[in-house]
Amino acid sequence: MDILVTNDDGINAPGIVALADALAEVGRVGVVAPDRERSAVGHALTLHHPLRATALGNDRFAIDGTPTDCVNLGIHSLLPFKPDIVVSGINRGANLGEDITYSGTVSAALEATLMGIPAFAVSLATEGDGVNYAAAGAFAARLARHIHRHGLPADTFLNVNVPDLPPDQLNPPLVTSQGKRRYEGMIIDKVDPRGRNYYWIGTVELNFLDIPGSDYAAISRRHISVTPLHLDQTNYASFAAIEAWDLG
Amino acid sequence: MDILVTNDDGINAPGIVALADALAEVGRVGVVAPDRERSAVGHALTLHHPLRATALGNDRFAIDGTPTDCVNLGIHSLLPFKPDIVVSGINRGANLGEDITYSGTVSAALEATLMGIPAFAVSLATEGDGVNYAAAGAFAARLARHIHRHGLPADTFLNVNVPDLPPDQLNPPLVTSQGKRRYEGMIIDKVDPRGRNYYWIGTVELNFLDIPGSDYAAISRRHISVTPLHLDQTNYASFAAIEAWDLG
Amino acid sequence: MDILVTNDDGINAPGIVALADALAEVGRVGVVAPDRERSAVGHALTLHHPLRATALGNDRFAIDGTPTDCVNLGIHSLLPFKPDIVVSGINRGANLGEDITYSGTVSAALEATLMGIPAFAVSLATEGDGVNYAAAGAFAARLARHIHRHGLPADTFLNVNVPDLPPDQLNPPLVTSQGKRRYEGMIIDKVDPRGRNYYWIGTVELNFLDIPGSDYAAISRRHISVTPLHLDQTNYASFAAIEAWDLG
Amino acid sequence: MDILVTNDDGINAPGIVALADALAEVGRVGVVAPDRERSAVGHALTLHHPLRATALGNDRFAIDGTPTDCVNLGIHSLLPFKPDIVVSGINRGANLGEDITYSGTVSAALEATLMGIPAFAVSLATEGDGVNYAAAGAFAARLARHIHRHGLPADTFLNVNVPDLPPDQLNPPLVTSQGKRRYEGMIIDKVDPRGRNYYWIGTVELNFLDIPGSDYAAISRRHISVTPLHLDQTNYASFAAIEAWDLG
Repeated sequence: MDILVTNDDGINAPGIVALADALAEVGRVGVVAPDRERSAVGHALTLHHPLRATALGNDRFAIDGTPTDCVNLGIHSLLPFKPDIVVSGINRGANLGEDITYSGTVSAALEATLMGIPAFAVSLATEGDGVNYAAAGAFAARLARHIHRHGLPADTFLNVNVPDLPPDQLNPPLVTSQGKRRYEGMIIDKVDPRGRNYYWIGTVELNFLDIPGSDYAAISRRHISVTPLHLDQTNYASFAAIEAWDLG
Repeated sequence: MDILVTNDDGINAPGIVALADALAEVGRVGVVAPDRERSAVGHALTLHHPLRATALGNDRFAIDGTPTDCVNLGIHSLLPFKPDIVVSGINRGANLGEDITYSGTVSAALEATLMGIPAFAVSLATEGDGVNYAAAGAFAARLARHIHRHGLPADTFLNVNVPDLPPDQLNPPLVTSQGKRRYEGMIIDKVDPRGRNYYWIGTVELNFLDIPGSDYAAISRRHISVTPLHLDQTNYASFAAIEAWDLG
Repeated sequence: MDILVTNDDGINAPGIVALADALAEVGRVGVVAPDRERSAVGHALTLHHPLRATALGNDRFAIDGTPTDCVNLGIHSLLPFKPDIVVSGINRGANLGEDITYSGTVSAALEATLMGIPAFAVSLATEGDGVNYAAAGAFAARLARHIHRHGLPADTFLNVNVPDLPPDQLNPPLVTSQGKRRYEGMIIDKVDPRGRNYYWIGTVELNFLDIPGSDYAAISRRHISVTPLHLDQTNYASFAAIEAWDLG
Repeated sequence: MDILVTNDDGINAPGIVALADALAEVGRVGVVAPDRERSAVGHALTLHHPLRATALGNDRFAIDGTPTDCVNLGIHSLLPFKPDIVVSGINRGANLGEDITYSGTVSAALEATLMGIPAFAVSLATEGDGVNYAAAGAFAARLARHIHRHGLPADTFLNVNVPDLPPDQLNPPLVTSQGKRRYEGMIIDKVDPRGRNYYWIGTVELNFLDIPGSDYAAISRRHISVTPLHLDQTNYASFAAIEAWDLG
């Protein structure tokens, strides 16, 4: 099994090092990852200027681009193999609920899926720097083997979150739904040393709703959470309501 | 009705001018949009550095950030009102199928939905610069009135695509599903004037599949396409398959 | 006389508009200037990524680069002529003393000189937005004619500062030396909304020394200041002192 | 002697590592340097957005800014001492003639001089990656001791270039003048994968003139070159010629 590893915390983050080490037990690993932190970049793709790749040896490349860029360069160039699977992470901090839409880590798995390659993202649910990357990496390696053997459902990729706990304190994995929280924005408005205003996007991070079966419900009870995500975001249940409007 | 307008083509693009003009017929309009083109930035949010807003008069602000940033600044700061609805566009070029995940225009509507404000994105399905922005704007104004009256289904926003045709050649709006195409990446590999390699992400844009009921099917038959998108991307149908794996 | 006009305040700044208008009276004008403010960029040259030029009609081009980049593109590409002279400005705010080393406006004139084309920079000595750009432009046009007729001394370009006063309140131009002030740095140290430190370079702008014959002395007495600058920055007078050290 | 070390090749470049090692023999060293290569940025100062500093331990800090920014942060913040001297380098590649105006390495020494701190820049005159950084570092350490003992002439800093040769093949240091070459620009004009033009600034690097006593003349004869540079760039010899024009 040939594996492309990427992330959004940057190629030197402890999470990606642990992930590459763990996956090396089950396959051949190439790493193509951002040269610095690129979190919250969503599914951004660099179309309007070129990218640089720094070869670090042993099929490792640092890119001055987004995780989505890295997946493109990793699949279509740079590596001596076309990957059988793409694994993104291990992210420092959970990716739960609608936060996945901002996540470079999760978007990298989405990009691979668009390219027809099975993929998953893995995050360590920690508030700080994180400790148990090796445990999360071991689960990723097991999951990669399953995916390689069984394949993934059509147009589907997995978003995995692992509590930051030693293996013997983890509860078993659960297949979960994408959770939900309430967002509240907040803008910090200040004046710079030259008298000009600037704005900094802050966040009031409100709690996730404790929805049974959700990613958050699993994580908060020390389970590993595995959420299958679908490329199709259509809300089919809403068709009748909207068709009732007089839009013509 | 108080309306926040944004886009990803930049505040001077003809599409946003036409959209703001059309919406001014049905409500009070504020424009908070990127100061330059920011296409393909996905749901990127600027967390790690501050933003600048240039006031252009009449509740218009140019921001050195992404469409998602603009929605944040527009809802929580800058404007003298909190918007009842957010409208993003009119994008130059269609946003169909999985392309919506790259789209700054669509991501702006997603961001507003996370903030609890009804929203839709509107794009002109054109290969070139686009001609019929006014017709698309008129439809957007009508749609905004319907949303203001009826509300949107929970956790749902709309992705609208309008063929680039005069109004009398348009077929009636259809509520559609998110379409699908095959992606194929392509990396352009060159050498710069100082002998260093660079990579440019190209695209081989393969055809959309002509799936009945999809956004693409509607647009290619001259219908306006209205796709309801849901925040929840969980693939519930795949639970059984994944639960059958021995992940524990 | 064919004239290339650039600046560092951006192509839409009032100073460059006034300058291009005034120079159109004495020659054919092309404008190649940054698409946004690029002040304090010094003599920065963009070597490691490509540049974009937006054609605005009538030999006007907006560049996503530095003033030095604009001079390169303007001399070697884009324009239908090779300029006889390069004029940079009219900068909003004076460029006096050692401040010239930070100035994108002055560095553009330096770049043209390196390329063998006579050049000068012109700045409006104002604390605010500036009023009398037309007067400064008129002096620039007169100066351009002199340079075209007489040439400039070898390896020399001019740094012009004009007080922000109506023409009838201006004292005659003086040829001056580069002035001098004491600098004092100041770092603003803050914490961002996510708890990370950031630093903003502030400035305690101390007074210029009132050195007879200097640019500052002229400006503060309502004279136009014309400072000839030389490419050679060697301090020949210091050779003996340093040669006395036992460096070998 | 407390020493601030910076460069423009980035904090991990072999030149700055060798320089810090060599200077640690003669004083206490703090390193504040760009987190990546920032060559050809001239005397650019970051005024309009904030900077980040990553503490790497042992008074080493990586900054997401220019060499000039690093000197500001290093003198006024970050370090536990105010430096007695600032040393910038060892640059990969010579900084000769007018090239110094583009150089981030030389501009860092200029910035320190403006702040009233003695400073010099040191570059390894090599066409490739460079070999003899240790020899150049040893000379820098000796020079730092001289400057600490004797001071530098007023408003003067030093630009040092060292041939890339083993110590026993080096000729003795010479105090030199700033050399001179002819520049010739060249613009590479291409089309990106989406059909839009882009421009890359290339260079036709013409030879330096072999002027007796110049930096180039010294280097090409295997001497270490020490050029004293003055803050005052006025061309006093040209006053009479320009005063003869009828500018009033």
